[in-house]
Amino acid sequence: MTIQLDSTRMRAPRVPSGVADAEWQGLGERFAAAHASVRARIADGSYGFADVASQDAEHERMLAWVATTHGRYDDIVVLGIGGSALGASMLRTALLPYGWNERSGAQRGGRPRLHVVDNVDPRSMAGLFELIELSRTLFLVISKSGGTAETMAQYLYVRHRIDDQGLPASHHIAVVTDPVAGVLRPVAERDGLPCFSVPANVGGRFSLFTPVATLPAALVGIDTTSLRAGAAAMATACAGHVLDANLAGQFAVLQWRAQARAGQGTHVMMPYSDALRGVAPWFVQLWAESLGKQDADGAHVGPTPLAALGATDQHSQVQLFMEGPTDKTVTFITERERPLDLRIPGLPGAPEGTGYLEGRTMGTLLDAEQSATADALAEMGRPSMAICLDRCDPWHLGALTMLFMQATVLAGELYRVNPTNQPGVELGKQLARRSLEASAERNR
Amino acid sequence: MTIQLDSTRMRAPRVPSGVADAEWQGLGERFAAAHASVRARIADGSYGFADVASQDAEHERMLAWVATTHGRYDDIVVLGIGGSALGASMLRTALLPYGWNERSGAQRGGRPRLHVVDNVDPRSMAGLFELIELSRTLFLVISKSGGTAETMAQYLYVRHRIDDQGLPASHHIAVVTDPVAGVLRPVAERDGLPCFSVPANVGGRFSLFTPVATLPAALVGIDTTSLRAGAAAMATACAGHVLDANLAGQFAVLQWRAQARAGQGTHVMMPYSDALRGVAPWFVQLWAESLGKQDADGAHVGPTPLAALGATDQHSQVQLFMEGPTDKTVTFITERERPLDLRIPGLPGAPEGTGYLEGRTMGTLLDAEQSATADALAEMGRPSMAICLDRCDPWHLGALTMLFMQATVLAGELYRVNPTNQPGVELGKQLARRSLEASAERNR
Repeated sequence: MTIQLDSTRMRAPRVPSGVADAEWQGLGERFAAAHASVRARIADGSYGFADVASQDAEHERMLAWVATTHGRYDDIVVLGIGGSALGASMLRTALLPYGWNERSGAQRGGRPRLHVVDNVDPRSMAGLFELIELSRTLFLVISKSGGTAETMAQYLYVRHRIDDQGLPASHHIAVVTDPVAGVLRPVAERDGLPCFSVPANVGGRFSLFTPVATLPAALVGIDTTSLRAGAAAMATACAGHVLDANLAGQFAVLQWRAQARAGQGTHVMMPYSDALRGVAPWFVQLWAESLGKQDADGAHVGPTPLAALGATDQHSQVQLFMEGPTDKTVTFITERERPLDLRIPGLPGAPEGTGYLEGRTMGTLLDAEQSATADALAEMGRPSMAICLDRCDPWHLGALTMLFMQATVLAGELYRVNPTNQPGVELGKQLARRSLEASAERNR
Repeated sequence: MTIQLDSTRMRAPRVPSGVADAEWQGLGERFAAAHASVRARIADGSYGFADVASQDAEHERMLAWVATTHGRYDDIVVLGIGGSALGASMLRTALLPYGWNERSGAQRGGRPRLHVVDNVDPRSMAGLFELIELSRTLFLVISKSGGTAETMAQYLYVRHRIDDQGLPASHHIAVVTDPVAGVLRPVAERDGLPCFSVPANVGGRFSLFTPVATLPAALVGIDTTSLRAGAAAMATACAGHVLDANLAGQFAVLQWRAQARAGQGTHVMMPYSDALRGVAPWFVQLWAESLGKQDADGAHVGPTPLAALGATDQHSQVQLFMEGPTDKTVTFITERERPLDLRIPGLPGAPEGTGYLEGRTMGTLLDAEQSATADALAEMGRPSMAICLDRCDPWHLGALTMLFMQATVLAGELYRVNPTNQPGVELGKQLARRSLEASAERNR
């Protein structure tokens, strides 16, 4: 495995509120029980995300279809929200060159731009239609049930525009949805829209290795086979029941224990990398929506994940992390190898006091800031851990995200919640629907 | 004032943990004392941000210079971090049309693109140089002291590229820095770089109405005069000592009281608007860095602000807000008027169950989701408030951000911390510098 987890700053005595060696033994037993439950749930098919290979055939079918689209589109537009949008956004930021959508077609090697419309704001939708040429655009309607109000509103608007312009819907809309259930599949079948499946046992926030994220990624040339291979490798590594060799287990146990025993329930996710910045909001959904709920006794539990970015947020949030309430852990994500780095030059007449930067690279500066921040936090008694990827590439991103998914279902056991449901959002949906229906009634 | 604050869902009995009427009276006295202190600090010049008019002359001088640049640049690049970047990013998202940097020059009316390079990641910097034509680019080096490692590293790299290409630095670099102190002003004077001032009594996170943010904004055509007028109007409104008529006071008191008396120290900022999404990270810095520190007794205090976006995060974080620990308040920001809205059409053969959307607008859907989320949270005993802007325009954005700045210094009184310093980030800076110096030593 070429992902490392450095948890020395989650341990006592380095950080006094951290785990002492004696406690770690007991945590190993907690882990073993949680791990056994998770293995049983994986074996009985409840956690479909962990069985990457079971979706190989659908992935191959999708790639074959993507191959037929080359040169046909200038713009790919994801219509989705939450788990249907965050994965594509993360992959775009991590794996496409900087400023992809601002580059010319030639700079993109003829590959399309990728837009992720993750809201129902009319200003964004109208603005998008000013940017794109409809006849050269493919919309991906991504909703497992087809019952998501925002995505359906987007679909209705877009479909109307396409029909209105006399364009064939089957050339401009593809669908990712449940293999059997839901209201989108009948529409796709009736109208001949290309349609790909999210397995019934894979929820939105666990859907990164399904067409929910791999379809938009593959359409812009991201190597989704490698992404899925990294995920499968990490899934295999996480099958091991020894805590000291199980990265997902360590992450889950350390975070849960920090909240349960040290009152550290705010879990900061802080990549030191512009490319990896999208991992933080993706993780926020995974961790918040899976674990923030009522536990087996009806208690309101769960960590509050918080997205940050290094070095940027040293100038925004780190003051709070250092000196505010002692209720946080910080997880850094770093890159070991940088295929591209830039040297900070010495200049005649450089501003005073900048000599120490001369000749260093920007990557060195970024790394120095990360380790200095970790040390400074430890000095103040604040725990942190660091996950280091060998490289920011599809394989490692697949492995990293699978690590977090496995950690999430393990944490579900520790927090004693069902990590795959989200009962708390139903009431808001019902109230919104009722208010819209009432206003429709009035307008009649 | 055309900004409204609806705090009914921060009050008992609507939300049981909220403020009862009797308690509100007592809070009025706390507010009065805090307000008197803040007024004194404004009068003695400690809080320069509140005196917008004192910077009118510098603003006029800056606008006159900006007028001379028309047509000269295709790209404006902010080199800055933290308070030197977040304001420009927020204004870009809020006040430029959607996808500004992806639009053609003609679609932008010949105005330049705006890039905000807020990190020292070499991949981003290299990617930026692939996007831009150096001879048609203006870099804004924004640092009050010139002592910010990240911004100085960016400057050294960029300056080297400009010199190397034989371009005149004074045509491609402008500086925003302290009027007297710091290491950048001597360089600017020596090399004839256009140079604008951040007053000594205005800190980075309070600098939105100074050239730190108004220079990049004005260069892309944003009406910064109107922005500053909105800020000045709100500053005047906040001079009033009656809590029920002081929006900043209400916001500060309600948030502080929620943490101090109800254990609700996580303060979610959740605009229901793509344009206003950048307000959340801007607020996060302001609230976190100003208040997260040791108080007068050495206790570690301060709220943890958390950025969210509606409706998007209903599918990510709202599950946690609804059913997780009862440690949060939510502040919604909404728009009353939408100059642009889109109707969701009815379609023959629309997916089953979407009838209730037909004929509604996207704006109506967004508003219905916001009020449903607020009601659902209240139903679960979770407090929230809603700030409603008449419109998303420069004037209202100036007023809104001044409201938050005034609330921040009031909250400083309530939390008993100095809201203008950030002592907790010094240690990390020193450690990073020491590690770079040591590596330079080794390389000698």
